[in-house]
Amino acid sequence: MARYDIFEKTCPLRFPLSVIGSKWGSLILLALESGDLRFSELCRAIGGISERMASQNLKYLEKYGLVRRHVIGNTAPPQVRYSLTPLGHDFVVPLTRMVNLADANATQMLWSDRQ
Amino acid sequence: MARYDIFEKTCPLRFPLSVIGSKWGSLILLALESGDLRFSELCRAIGGISERMASQNLKYLEKYGLVRRHVIGNTAPPQVRYSLTPLGHDFVVPLTRMVNLADANATQMLWSDRQ
Repeated sequence: MARYDIFEKTCPLRFPLSVIGSKWGSLILLALESGDLRFSELCRAIGGISERMASQNLKYLEKYGLVRRHVIGNTAPPQVRYSLTPLGHDFVVPLTRMVNLADANATQMLWSDRQ
Repeated sequence: MARYDIFEKTCPLRFPLSVIGSKWGSLILLALESGDLRFSELCRAIGGISERMASQNLKYLEKYGLVRRHVIGNTAPPQVRYSLTPLGHDFVVPLTRMVNLADANATQMLWSDRQ
């Protein structure tokens, strides 16, 4: 049974969901699906992402419990790796479904002469 | 087999997917799931949406083939109703899954003391 109603203006789930569904938020989750990555690897994996956008979205995804930040060893600068939490993996399932739906229907979505 | 690679900077699916996953885009699709609506009904169903945001997102969703705009009768002003296409219904499935995941994990997502 739903506890929150996302049709309500003040629903606190609206913002987290919009981060998860956003261009950069969703691509970060999808990129981490196949394994943990360093910040620089993540930025290289996602064409066009800026360090600022990557950093900002990672902070939100960490805050919402979808991404975990690991500091490894005692080096300076510290080596930092990012991985999905179990909840992050859960969200990747519908996100992947959406990407696959768009891919399978790309002709209809992109090249229609409706407009 | 995927034809497009959303990790590519120029992937044409990125923008449509970000509209579908956006706060207003996703709420419009979810609101239309239970039946077609007039513009004013849609705006009332989605707390906080402005007419401008509703109109802009409806145009995109119509362009991408997820929403259909029906002009009914011959009145002035014309009566316009919006409904989901079969592809729109397809996208509502993973969107609903994401809302349900967020709802079921709201405590963890919203009230964690990770930060």
